[in-house]
Amino acid sequence: MDFESFYKDKRVLITGGLGFIGSNLAIMLVNIGADVTIIDSLDKNCGGNEYNIDSVKDKIKVIKADIRDKDVIRDAVEGQQIIFNLAGHLSHKRSMKQPELDMSLNIFTSLSLLDACKKNRKGVKIVYTGTRGQYGKIIKNPVDENHPHNFIDVNGISKQTAERLHFLYSELYPQIRVTSARLTNCYGPRHQMKDPSQGFISVFIRKAIDNETLELWGGKQTRDLNFVNDVVNVLLLLGSEEKANGQMFNVGSGVDNTLENFANLIVKLCRSGEIKSISMPEDNAKIDIGNYKADISKLKRLFGWEPKTNIEEGLKKTIDFYKKNKEEYW
Amino acid sequence: MDFESFYKDKRVLITGGLGFIGSNLAIMLVNIGADVTIIDSLDKNCGGNEYNIDSVKDKIKVIKADIRDKDVIRDAVEGQQIIFNLAGHLSHKRSMKQPELDMSLNIFTSLSLLDACKKNRKGVKIVYTGTRGQYGKIIKNPVDENHPHNFIDVNGISKQTAERLHFLYSELYPQIRVTSARLTNCYGPRHQMKDPSQGFISVFIRKAIDNETLELWGGKQTRDLNFVNDVVNVLLLLGSEEKANGQMFNVGSGVDNTLENFANLIVKLCRSGEIKSISMPEDNAKIDIGNYKADISKLKRLFGWEPKTNIEEGLKKTIDFYKKNKEEYW
Repeated sequence: MDFESFYKDKRVLITGGLGFIGSNLAIMLVNIGADVTIIDSLDKNCGGNEYNIDSVKDKIKVIKADIRDKDVIRDAVEGQQIIFNLAGHLSHKRSMKQPELDMSLNIFTSLSLLDACKKNRKGVKIVYTGTRGQYGKIIKNPVDENHPHNFIDVNGISKQTAERLHFLYSELYPQIRVTSARLTNCYGPRHQMKDPSQGFISVFIRKAIDNETLELWGGKQTRDLNFVNDVVNVLLLLGSEEKANGQMFNVGSGVDNTLENFANLIVKLCRSGEIKSISMPEDNAKIDIGNYKADISKLKRLFGWEPKTNIEEGLKKTIDFYKKNKEEYW
Repeated sequence: MDFESFYKDKRVLITGGLGFIGSNLAIMLVNIGADVTIIDSLDKNCGGNEYNIDSVKDKIKVIKADIRDKDVIRDAVEGQQIIFNLAGHLSHKRSMKQPELDMSLNIFTSLSLLDACKKNRKGVKIVYTGTRGQYGKIIKNPVDENHPHNFIDVNGISKQTAERLHFLYSELYPQIRVTSARLTNCYGPRHQMKDPSQGFISVFIRKAIDNETLELWGGKQTRDLNFVNDVVNVLLLLGSEEKANGQMFNVGSGVDNTLENFANLIVKLCRSGEIKSISMPEDNAKIDIGNYKADISKLKRLFGWEPKTNIEEGLKKTIDFYKKNKEEYW
């Protein structure tokens, strides 16, 4: 899909833009001629890293601030035409240990942004990024947008609440148009590699590159692993399509993999690391979702969208990136 | 129903217990021999009033504190067997003007309580009080517990989020047993009468007693108006029934009334006041739910429960109470 014509010279704000997906999105937007502003608090519980945007840093305005600060966000949204709202917290485990932190980082950030947009008289489009965690325990695969919400952690509830707030504001204040992309596990360059509580992918890749042992908990559970370029592609699509307004979309690769396959592939591509299977720790078993594969037929049906990257190709690019930039991520 | 045997000598905590429903519940619990503690912050945005429990004040322990204070709530839940979680914020309109206030008063209070209960090794039963606002715009009357959530204000979302958190904690920590009562408009003695943003009922009664004009916005919309004694009765029932655990129940009077009928009845019983119909202010029309009647068949089916008070009888008691205690509520 060609988004150049839509985003050229558009004023775009990315909350959480120093993070994994946000920075990849920012780089792509700069490349297609958008006027990009990033706002990011670099909260230590999230995944921000200034190096993520190093290659385009002279072409982006970066505001290092917390969007819960009403004065800051009021100025930041001024004149913006499209906002990608990626600021937030995603650690399932930390959300159970520090539920107030999770709730505040997910709900109060969005509330502050939405409240600021109420005053934007020219109208703004917001792309919210939700998560498969909003479905919780999976009872039917592949998972479509109508799957019930069987929450198994505070994070799923806080992300769902924030999404609900987006749609409420877009109904009450028609100048705010909203769409939501519910993401699954993403991998790719610019993911944080230090905090193991933010998902197994970065842990596996780091350990393999360091020639250490990847601990597989069980390993037979399946996940839908999505390369970040494909995710960025969907977000740009949804930001440009008025038909997406008022709707949520499951985003995925269209393929599921067992964690065992995934770990084996990483070790093979890295040519280092080894795998050890252990049973799942009890704390994690409680908040495990079962298997997950996104049903992406709604994206296909409405927009003809399909992911482009197979997992081997995506992982190669990812591992190359971290091997070259190890000192910035380790 | 006879709850005496169940509640006698039981240790019961009521959050928001100086408020309208909480205080009526506390008085009933004292009368049937429970060991009652109230915790209430007397937040000016809520409905607390120390006079509400004046008649039983020597038989109740009152903690004036905010349950978001982790140290306070940890001590307060210690040894409690049943907790009625009534602390919260209910103004629909204020929730749109001060969304962070609404979210914090509804979500962070519950989160703090639940987190404290995780550590309660002997087990505790929590009765959460939700609201018809969790359904938002009504598409089908009477409204059962599976009605979709078409949120029309921040308050509906915050109450839904808090309810979800209760059920999540009860699934993850089986020593916490939870049931939720989704209430409709309640009336009766001990309601606050000063803040018009907390619903039309107290506004109507106050104006009629003061021989002023009751402004009807339209007036043809219907509501399910529930006398507080019947609400207290349901809460006691749900607190005592293990069969209610893990479930939510719509609570109502079983009868709907137009606001016009309700206003006329108040004026008739007060023998003062007059009614003027005007069209609904735009801000309120946006967040109006349409008509509402609770489907209370689940309560009937499982427990044989039925409301006992007809509206004329309930309103008579209510008006008598305020005429006698005007100086404490005006």
